[in-house]
Amino acid sequence: MKANQYIRYIVPTLLFGTQRTKKIVNVNPTSEAHRQDSKESFITVYDYNEQGFSEDKLTLVEESFTFLDNNHISWINVDGLIKANVEKIADHFRIHPLLAEDILSIGQRPKMDEVEGIFYCLLNMLYYNRKQDCVETEQISIVLGKNFVITFQEDPEKDVFNPLREKIKLQNSKLRQRGADYLCYSMLDLIVDNYFLVMERLGERIESVEEEVIRNSNKRSLASISQLRKELIILKRNIGPVRDMIAGITRSESELLDERTTKYFKDVYDHIVQAYDLCENYRDITGSMQDLYINNVNLRMNEVMKVMAIVTCLLAPATVIGGIFGMNFESIPLLHNKWGFMVAVGTMLLIPVWMLRMFRKKGWF
Amino acid sequence: MKANQYIRYIVPTLLFGTQRTKKIVNVNPTSEAHRQDSKESFITVYDYNEQGFSEDKLTLVEESFTFLDNNHISWINVDGLIKANVEKIADHFRIHPLLAEDILSIGQRPKMDEVEGIFYCLLNMLYYNRKQDCVETEQISIVLGKNFVITFQEDPEKDVFNPLREKIKLQNSKLRQRGADYLCYSMLDLIVDNYFLVMERLGERIESVEEEVIRNSNKRSLASISQLRKELIILKRNIGPVRDMIAGITRSESELLDERTTKYFKDVYDHIVQAYDLCENYRDITGSMQDLYINNVNLRMNEVMKVMAIVTCLLAPATVIGGIFGMNFESIPLLHNKWGFMVAVGTMLLIPVWMLRMFRKKGWF
Amino acid sequence: MKANQYIRYIVPTLLFGTQRTKKIVNVNPTSEAHRQDSKESFITVYDYNEQGFSEDKLTLVEESFTFLDNNHISWINVDGLIKANVEKIADHFRIHPLLAEDILSIGQRPKMDEVEGIFYCLLNMLYYNRKQDCVETEQISIVLGKNFVITFQEDPEKDVFNPLREKIKLQNSKLRQRGADYLCYSMLDLIVDNYFLVMERLGERIESVEEEVIRNSNKRSLASISQLRKELIILKRNIGPVRDMIAGITRSESELLDERTTKYFKDVYDHIVQAYDLCENYRDITGSMQDLYINNVNLRMNEVMKVMAIVTCLLAPATVIGGIFGMNFESIPLLHNKWGFMVAVGTMLLIPVWMLRMFRKKGWF
Amino acid sequence: MKANQYIRYIVPTLLFGTQRTKKIVNVNPTSEAHRQDSKESFITVYDYNEQGFSEDKLTLVEESFTFLDNNHISWINVDGLIKANVEKIADHFRIHPLLAEDILSIGQRPKMDEVEGIFYCLLNMLYYNRKQDCVETEQISIVLGKNFVITFQEDPEKDVFNPLREKIKLQNSKLRQRGADYLCYSMLDLIVDNYFLVMERLGERIESVEEEVIRNSNKRSLASISQLRKELIILKRNIGPVRDMIAGITRSESELLDERTTKYFKDVYDHIVQAYDLCENYRDITGSMQDLYINNVNLRMNEVMKVMAIVTCLLAPATVIGGIFGMNFESIPLLHNKWGFMVAVGTMLLIPVWMLRMFRKKGWF
Amino acid sequence: MKANQYIRYIVPTLLFGTQRTKKIVNVNPTSEAHRQDSKESFITVYDYNEQGFSEDKLTLVEESFTFLDNNHISWINVDGLIKANVEKIADHFRIHPLLAEDILSIGQRPKMDEVEGIFYCLLNMLYYNRKQDCVETEQISIVLGKNFVITFQEDPEKDVFNPLREKIKLQNSKLRQRGADYLCYSMLDLIVDNYFLVMERLGERIESVEEEVIRNSNKRSLASISQLRKELIILKRNIGPVRDMIAGITRSESELLDERTTKYFKDVYDHIVQAYDLCENYRDITGSMQDLYINNVNLRMNEVMKVMAIVTCLLAPATVIGGIFGMNFESIPLLHNKWGFMVAVGTMLLIPVWMLRMFRKKGWF
Repeated sequence: MKANQYIRYIVPTLLFGTQRTKKIVNVNPTSEAHRQDSKESFITVYDYNEQGFSEDKLTLVEESFTFLDNNHISWINVDGLIKANVEKIADHFRIHPLLAEDILSIGQRPKMDEVEGIFYCLLNMLYYNRKQDCVETEQISIVLGKNFVITFQEDPEKDVFNPLREKIKLQNSKLRQRGADYLCYSMLDLIVDNYFLVMERLGERIESVEEEVIRNSNKRSLASISQLRKELIILKRNIGPVRDMIAGITRSESELLDERTTKYFKDVYDHIVQAYDLCENYRDITGSMQDLYINNVNLRMNEVMKVMAIVTCLLAPATVIGGIFGMNFESIPLLHNKWGFMVAVGTMLLIPVWMLRMFRKKGWF
Repeated sequence: MKANQYIRYIVPTLLFGTQRTKKIVNVNPTSEAHRQDSKESFITVYDYNEQGFSEDKLTLVEESFTFLDNNHISWINVDGLIKANVEKIADHFRIHPLLAEDILSIGQRPKMDEVEGIFYCLLNMLYYNRKQDCVETEQISIVLGKNFVITFQEDPEKDVFNPLREKIKLQNSKLRQRGADYLCYSMLDLIVDNYFLVMERLGERIESVEEEVIRNSNKRSLASISQLRKELIILKRNIGPVRDMIAGITRSESELLDERTTKYFKDVYDHIVQAYDLCENYRDITGSMQDLYINNVNLRMNEVMKVMAIVTCLLAPATVIGGIFGMNFESIPLLHNKWGFMVAVGTMLLIPVWMLRMFRKKGWF
Repeated sequence: MKANQYIRYIVPTLLFGTQRTKKIVNVNPTSEAHRQDSKESFITVYDYNEQGFSEDKLTLVEESFTFLDNNHISWINVDGLIKANVEKIADHFRIHPLLAEDILSIGQRPKMDEVEGIFYCLLNMLYYNRKQDCVETEQISIVLGKNFVITFQEDPEKDVFNPLREKIKLQNSKLRQRGADYLCYSMLDLIVDNYFLVMERLGERIESVEEEVIRNSNKRSLASISQLRKELIILKRNIGPVRDMIAGITRSESELLDERTTKYFKDVYDHIVQAYDLCENYRDITGSMQDLYINNVNLRMNEVMKVMAIVTCLLAPATVIGGIFGMNFESIPLLHNKWGFMVAVGTMLLIPVWMLRMFRKKGWF
Repeated sequence: MKANQYIRYIVPTLLFGTQRTKKIVNVNPTSEAHRQDSKESFITVYDYNEQGFSEDKLTLVEESFTFLDNNHISWINVDGLIKANVEKIADHFRIHPLLAEDILSIGQRPKMDEVEGIFYCLLNMLYYNRKQDCVETEQISIVLGKNFVITFQEDPEKDVFNPLREKIKLQNSKLRQRGADYLCYSMLDLIVDNYFLVMERLGERIESVEEEVIRNSNKRSLASISQLRKELIILKRNIGPVRDMIAGITRSESELLDERTTKYFKDVYDHIVQAYDLCENYRDITGSMQDLYINNVNLRMNEVMKVMAIVTCLLAPATVIGGIFGMNFESIPLLHNKWGFMVAVGTMLLIPVWMLRMFRKKGWF
Repeated sequence: MKANQYIRYIVPTLLFGTQRTKKIVNVNPTSEAHRQDSKESFITVYDYNEQGFSEDKLTLVEESFTFLDNNHISWINVDGLIKANVEKIADHFRIHPLLAEDILSIGQRPKMDEVEGIFYCLLNMLYYNRKQDCVETEQISIVLGKNFVITFQEDPEKDVFNPLREKIKLQNSKLRQRGADYLCYSMLDLIVDNYFLVMERLGERIESVEEEVIRNSNKRSLASISQLRKELIILKRNIGPVRDMIAGITRSESELLDERTTKYFKDVYDHIVQAYDLCENYRDITGSMQDLYINNVNLRMNEVMKVMAIVTCLLAPATVIGGIFGMNFESIPLLHNKWGFMVAVGTMLLIPVWMLRMFRKKGWF
């Protein structure tokens, strides 16, 4: 066997990387100190009511303060977290210091809170990184107050709110006709919808790995399954608490949430429950893929071993016969017979044939 | 061993198809955009009260509008979903836009909702496809309003409501004497009853696969078990939420549901709970079938290996004896003895016989 | 190895029969149409109050109608279900048509219901069939009304109520001094008590199978375990819902149930909970029996393979030495030496002895 | 291999005894008839109040009747159950016949009940039998009435109440200053405390079996693990319901339980919850011990098989070479060469050395 | 194979030490008698209000009594438990004797209690011992009364309260402005935060063990995984009840807890829930590490066995051919042919080459 032929059985160390494990095991939501300030922080304000709409890119945090009491609905989107800025905003918009701490925390579990007239949601947006086939998270904090929503995101590059930005510009969109709670709902809806996109990608990956396992199970397949399972842990960890969170919103009796908006949140809740169920299905499927893989490897191995054992066994009688007539006794029957050799070789051939028959009769191969 | 004899151990790629996995993993209820309008949409109205009955096939959506306030019970059955039509109906019958969205959605989780005087159920009808031995689903939306029920189905070809159509025609049937809520109950009852038919087919399949596993476990059996498990995931995914949904209906205090009808819904609930239990039993049984399969494969393999090892082992001493007397030493005892050969061959035979006895004594075979 | 010696490893197809699986997977409580009318239906009425007692075997269903309002407690026992009869009784005793349907249904899940002044219990009596070592079920419906109890049984041959029949005849028995609810309790109590008898038999079977697994694990043991597990599924399926049912009765605030009787139902509840726990224990034990079986089979197999491998390995050096001195080179050392043969054979013996020592030192056997 | 060396792999039938299984599977709490009257029944009365204390050994059951209404706290301890006596006491102390039945029952699940001014607890005291390393149970019934506690025990020889007997004698003990409910609490507390002693013993056994599994896994270890698991089933079966029972007491609003005593019961509850948790931990640990055992056995087996296979494989080329030069062809190269033999034997040695190198390079051993 | 090469397969007894098992299985919270008095007991009092702060190291227990009613907030920290001292304090600060018992108990399950105006928490601080890679616990009791908090710790050397000591000294810290309940919250917060530090260490260990399993699975890895699992049992046992405990605090309606403080406790609750989730993730990951380990070991073993079997099998035909032409028959074809030897040896070479091809074609290696 050449080296490059069994290479595929060698443990692919790189694939089994422990980086994901690191991501999963190293969570410490309590130590806010770890978060480094972003280099830059972009603040964009979408200020609207049924009649008008304006979009402002602010350069100073303080500029946002004017939007607190202007009777319009204001969405203040903060991209990139700088401790000083967050605290200034929290201070002016009367966000409880504990919430400010949560905004700045790392690795928080999705949660919902209502403190002194402020409604607060913390959750993760998920993205699927196609290059590394893994799920990426970005923490987002949504602060809902009277007539304003403030969102705090980690990464200025990306979010899932572009459809929202479009809708705000349309005068006859429902968004423009409803209050800040509807804006908050729209955000959660988009985030949860995006979970399904991520799961769709992961679903495709599960499919292709299953295909691989079925066609040619190799060590690489096991690595892929193992990686998928880790992604599912990350997925479930993010989706599970969001489910509880949104259930909490639908039960909430906050004055900030208009009764008309409740049924929209219930709709989001239906979706997140389905996402969670789907997660469980994924888990089931990867589990049975692993069983299948192990079964395939064993079956192939067994097949080889069986054939080898049978061949070795079939040839053993011939060796014995060869040994018998190779002995140097003076008087061995048949030795001087003209047909002796033929008889011996014939027996060597006949015994395996007879054995084969017997084996086959017993259904051994 | 001939090729066509071990063929049955080759992984049957086709059987392990990943299409079902695709069906299971790729669910995204949030993106309504995906649904393509049906080519055709058939609207049938069954309009009845205790005295009379009429059946109309409509050509225009707008014709259905007259049935809203005619004091008869009307069942408007829409086969084939066309976005424009659904929205027109929703608009006229005052169905909330969110519900209209749900009607048009794909891959939704079964759910129940009550919004502004409209009672809404979304679930799947299940059919068993005997050709591919798989469970097929068709989404159905049941909208219950005051004096009317509107059903939206995807596939004009099939549904499970034929017994209902018969009963409507019978003047003395209970259906004719009760309100729209009883019609809604009758629909859910038929859908759930049909689940049992599907499960019966699946049960037969489980039986025949078990038979196969017991008689001659081969790779194909594993594929069948694996396929069955996927069908069970799909089954459970559909039945589980329906259970919650019907429990919700029995608890509901909607004015649309007559108190006299509640006990009928409780009856449906009993059935769906039993369907769910049965699902769990199916799972148990397929699980132990898989164990049985693996056990059978291992046992047969072990048996073969053991016999091979024993035969090889029994012949080894003969080889050694043959080797001893085949050596070319000048002075080997017995070589020139007349009975030498007989003694040697005799020993060759006696040792295995003695070994066999010892092995058997130790209960090794 | 003779055929009759490995026969015990051959899969005993008959033992692994799929009939039980059929029983488990084919449940369809919704299709009442399947039930065929019994050939005969026996109606016995036990009519009693504190003072008197009468037992009547009725020939016509209509005769039972007089017992509805006679101020005595009446137990009307119907053995053998005939649709027409059941419906006549239901009609006269004001049993809701849905309940009548349940009485006639097949494969129902145990349930309890209270509809319009009628208290209804449906459950299964269990019997242990010693011949086939399986659990048999007989559906029984208990209808409790004001002053009467009607029981519907499938099989006229057997039930578990004989002790009750005795007690009814005793004037000073508590049964005679209490109302119809106490009669109903007595029935449930007897049915649940009988579950324990069935479990006792099953327990004995578990014991004897365990004994068998320990003494000589063979394929037949696996079949027995597999069969036991199916019986446990059937047992659990019957006991679980009965538990919920009786819990429901203890919580019920029906006027039909005297408060004094509640504590008796609580007593039955304690028993059924214990039966359920016991079921779980049985499951645990059969699970670990299966583990034990697999372990035993593997261990024995391993032992054999190891000894074979060791024997083969020990003899290999001798073969090589034989080969060396059997070569036809002109000048081979020792060949012409007087002690040559002895040295060669001695080495053949010494090497295995040395190997054995080394193996033993490493603890390999 | 000598017989006494593989003896440790033989299934130790005696160790795997099915008696424990019998104990676990054969539970039938419904058939009171099975209990045989004890040969003797000892009745001891501890009668006390804050001022005084007396201890009386009664010879007749009737003597105990005077303690019902004497305004002292009386603990009537009945050791050994005789049906007639129990019924006499039940009758006089107004204990409901159902409770009397429970007192006389066998194999009951721990339960709590409050019937007509009587508070009733049934549970098992556990003892650890060091000789057979198993958990023994003794059923105890505690009947709490106004000013009296009656305990019914099966075995006159042993109980766990000695510390209580000491405390009763001490005038300034809290026991003397509180009511009958405190006495009842003290009993439950002692019983639960004793559970921990039993678990401590079992814990030691788990430790020593783990030690054994690690040092030299043999079949006996598996028997020990299997036995431990059965003990844990018995433990859990006793502790689980006691937990529910004591939770029931803490929630109870019986007049018999002084509010001041509630926090003491809560303390017992904390302990029993911890005992239950501990039980789960034990289960986890024995589970992973079994895994470890199987792994060890497999690893050792694999090691042996690998070495055997390698040795056999290394010697095979030498056999072939020996065969080549042992052929009787007329013209075989090297045969007449002076160094021929050396070359042949040298090759025989070199090939295995080269193979060994290659194997080692691939990390095969 | 040299001894030092397979040494890594030998069970590393030391690593599998049973000390941790001892720690897990031997828990008995009921026997307070076991706790030995500490040699020394240090009492430090931090007495503060918004205006001032003092820190006192007391030499006599009695000195602490003055802090009960001085209108300042007092934190009395007792390091080292001496029975007499604890009882004196409990007596003076009106702590219920049951709580005093709990303070002195060993191996208690974390619990919360409120008795007669005293709020009591018992839990464990966790530390990670880097040397032995294990989790250490130190029991702490927090007693919250009106205006005072008393903490009882076992080990004077260490605790997690240093940040608190710093904050107390800062006049403008929130701690100084709030009541004793905020002090109690701060303590629980620090303890829970410290859990995450411990889990971080454990997470690092999990990572490094996973790395090890992937790179070179050996017996030592299994020992490490087994050890990790035990640590996780200890972790979960400590975190689970703390979760329930803090949930209890957030629901508590004690007068000792200011409503403003509730949201802080809710924050701690969020953290402890996340810690618990993380624990579950750890468990998942170690579980799949074990699977991976077993798979790796099997795969490597299989690879070796397969190659050995193939080599042995390939050489078997050559042995037979050697035997054939080594027979001493008079007339063997080719023997006297000039090319005979070449033909024989050629066949010996060609057969394995042909076999290799066939094996490869069947994908056997």
